[in-house]
Amino acid sequence: MRSTPTAETFPAHTPAASQIFTTVLSQGPLTRLEVARRAGLSAAAVTKAVRPLLADGYLVETADEEARPALGRPATLVRVDGGRALFIGVKATGDELIGVLTDLCCRIRLARRVPLTDRATKAVLAAMTDLVHELLAEAEDFGTPVLGLGVAVSGDVDRTEGVVRYSPFLDWRDVSLAELAAEATGLPVTVENDVRALTVAEQWFGAGVGLSDFAVVTVGAGIGCGLVVHGRVIAGAHGVAGEIGHVTVDPAGPPCRCGNRGCVEAIAGDAAIVRRIRETTGVEVADTAEAVTLAHQGVAGAREAYARAGEAIGRGIATVANLLGPERVIISGEGLAAYDLFAEQIRDTFAAAAFGSAADCDVQTRPLPFEEWARGAAATAIQSFITPDEPRPSR
Amino acid sequence: MRSTPTAETFPAHTPAASQIFTTVLSQGPLTRLEVARRAGLSAAAVTKAVRPLLADGYLVETADEEARPALGRPATLVRVDGGRALFIGVKATGDELIGVLTDLCCRIRLARRVPLTDRATKAVLAAMTDLVHELLAEAEDFGTPVLGLGVAVSGDVDRTEGVVRYSPFLDWRDVSLAELAAEATGLPVTVENDVRALTVAEQWFGAGVGLSDFAVVTVGAGIGCGLVVHGRVIAGAHGVAGEIGHVTVDPAGPPCRCGNRGCVEAIAGDAAIVRRIRETTGVEVADTAEAVTLAHQGVAGAREAYARAGEAIGRGIATVANLLGPERVIISGEGLAAYDLFAEQIRDTFAAAAFGSAADCDVQTRPLPFEEWARGAAATAIQSFITPDEPRPSR
Ligand SMILES: [Zn+2]
Ligand SMILES: [Zn+2]
Repeated sequence: MRSTPTAETFPAHTPAASQIFTTVLSQGPLTRLEVARRAGLSAAAVTKAVRPLLADGYLVETADEEARPALGRPATLVRVDGGRALFIGVKATGDELIGVLTDLCCRIRLARRVPLTDRATKAVLAAMTDLVHELLAEAEDFGTPVLGLGVAVSGDVDRTEGVVRYSPFLDWRDVSLAELAAEATGLPVTVENDVRALTVAEQWFGAGVGLSDFAVVTVGAGIGCGLVVHGRVIAGAHGVAGEIGHVTVDPAGPPCRCGNRGCVEAIAGDAAIVRRIRETTGVEVADTAEAVTLAHQGVAGAREAYARAGEAIGRGIATVANLLGPERVIISGEGLAAYDLFAEQIRDTFAAAAFGSAADCDVQTRPLPFEEWARGAAATAIQSFITPDEPRPSR
Repeated sequence: MRSTPTAETFPAHTPAASQIFTTVLSQGPLTRLEVARRAGLSAAAVTKAVRPLLADGYLVETADEEARPALGRPATLVRVDGGRALFIGVKATGDELIGVLTDLCCRIRLARRVPLTDRATKAVLAAMTDLVHELLAEAEDFGTPVLGLGVAVSGDVDRTEGVVRYSPFLDWRDVSLAELAAEATGLPVTVENDVRALTVAEQWFGAGVGLSDFAVVTVGAGIGCGLVVHGRVIAGAHGVAGEIGHVTVDPAGPPCRCGNRGCVEAIAGDAAIVRRIRETTGVEVADTAEAVTLAHQGVAGAREAYARAGEAIGRGIATVANLLGPERVIISGEGLAAYDLFAEQIRDTFAAAAFGSAADCDVQTRPLPFEEWARGAAATAIQSFITPDEPRPSR
């Protein structure tokens, strides 16, 4: 995270404090005892960590009136005071920017979309700055400071350095986005891969709440994957992780932009499906919408292209399950619009290729609008705000 | 872990205490400050955790005479007192049992091998009990109690329940090994998948020391994989993880025992290589030794079988790197004996199939004798001794 000086800093920069805060944020209100149990910490550690957070108003305690016992006082519940601070999250696609203003509980207060007509860094940055300023202006009505900006971009993103190393859909290479956006907006900026940002949103508020091991697989233009292992999103030692799109399905398959053949994305990405339908039917399919229409009309070549895509995705998910054994895999992304065309193939191929009890993994679909991705971006900004810089293991 | 009552229990059953103990065990002697830094904990947390461990003699403090400053007192270093306790580790292959007696630092004091003539549970259990009793008798000379037994078995092992769900090489299904071995030996028993046990040994004492993300890939009769993510070995929510052997390399490839085709193991496992050489050369190759000999003699079909195996292993490793982005991949196992026959193909296929900077992963080979796997089993027993039962995340 690159940060410019702000008035406010989180009062408890220890791993335990941020873990406790995140637990209360995503699962609260909770009693202190329950916080301790869920965070795997001692009651004393919880007491110590919540003190400064209560003092500074990030956490509040209230009586649990609903569970008031017949005799005696009701239990005290800890929760995050959502109104204590605001954050902004922006998700950039190749075609538009989706921005949300959230409170400290990462609840969306406002959402805005602006089209992108130019994908050059400068143009995107200018559009993003306008969008952020618009949200900042709106934020003034809340009388609460905006403490951070999270930006989610597809591709190879180095969150620690705040650099977009390579974003194929924006055609960016080595853009110091965090620094540029911080200069332009005056906010501390966190830049994260968009699928990993969405995964944080799912971990905190979605189908991943309370799970220590799960995966989010996004289907659409690209095939992405966010992996949570031991309760944390995997970033990869070299900045690459979750590249399910480049798991090989068929070494004799169609060429992929990564230089290999038969990757999941080279069979199941939007462009690959369109290309396949053109090849097998001879119809000059223009885009995904047309491809879906053809398939729904029952055109054999179109149906076959989606069936192949489903098999490729199912095999990719099985590979994730065989290596990591997640409790749940959440399938999302724009590609869900065509889900009826490949759901069966995903399910069947996964079941066949999952090894032993890896097949017990709960595979489910969740349509998540881009606002949810932007909310994930805001969640990464909240993470940066509450999380201490991690000590790196030494050799 | 199933445990029978023992005189001794570890005096500090908190996650911090076991983390600190493990850090000192694998990286010590260290100053308290350095322990805090490497464990990512506060100095106060370290002080609190080491107190009972010092009092009970599990840790000792000594002056750092080597780094004595010109003026003043030398720094104080914390280390584990290896002589404080003993542990036993046993690795079972299809053909023999390898047992080691280790101290609390998991240094091997004694090693024994006994052949297995019968793979039935009863026979293996009887042989293991004899081996453990022999090591227990030897342990009396050390005047230190043996506090646990770790058993490492290939296949699908549920460590929490102490059950070998399925071990193909022993042909076992649903064997409550921890319970049976605890009854037979009177020791607390930890049962773990053998590759995961070896991975613990590598994490504590081998090429994984200080790395938060690495993988161990074992080649031989089976193709296995132990994965460390965020500093901990992945077990899988449903007990399956690291099944690199069943990553699909070629959906049109040879059938695999898992019911799919073209898995890494179906191409690169010992039996698959032997079968392939028979098919392409017509020579009735008896075993791996003969296969290696043929390849070293330059027989084209034999060389090709190894080259294919190398490609399959390289692709499996690339899949691990693309999904998890480990810092290092350590290749080991009996199959390393033939490493010269497929090293180049592993390297080339990995480099081609690794996505972007995932190719920066350090892939190295380490020949590790079965005693090291048994040491890993002992390490899991030490883990069980020092680690509290983990709280499960709730839904
Ligand atoms: Zn690819
Ligand atoms: Zn298989």
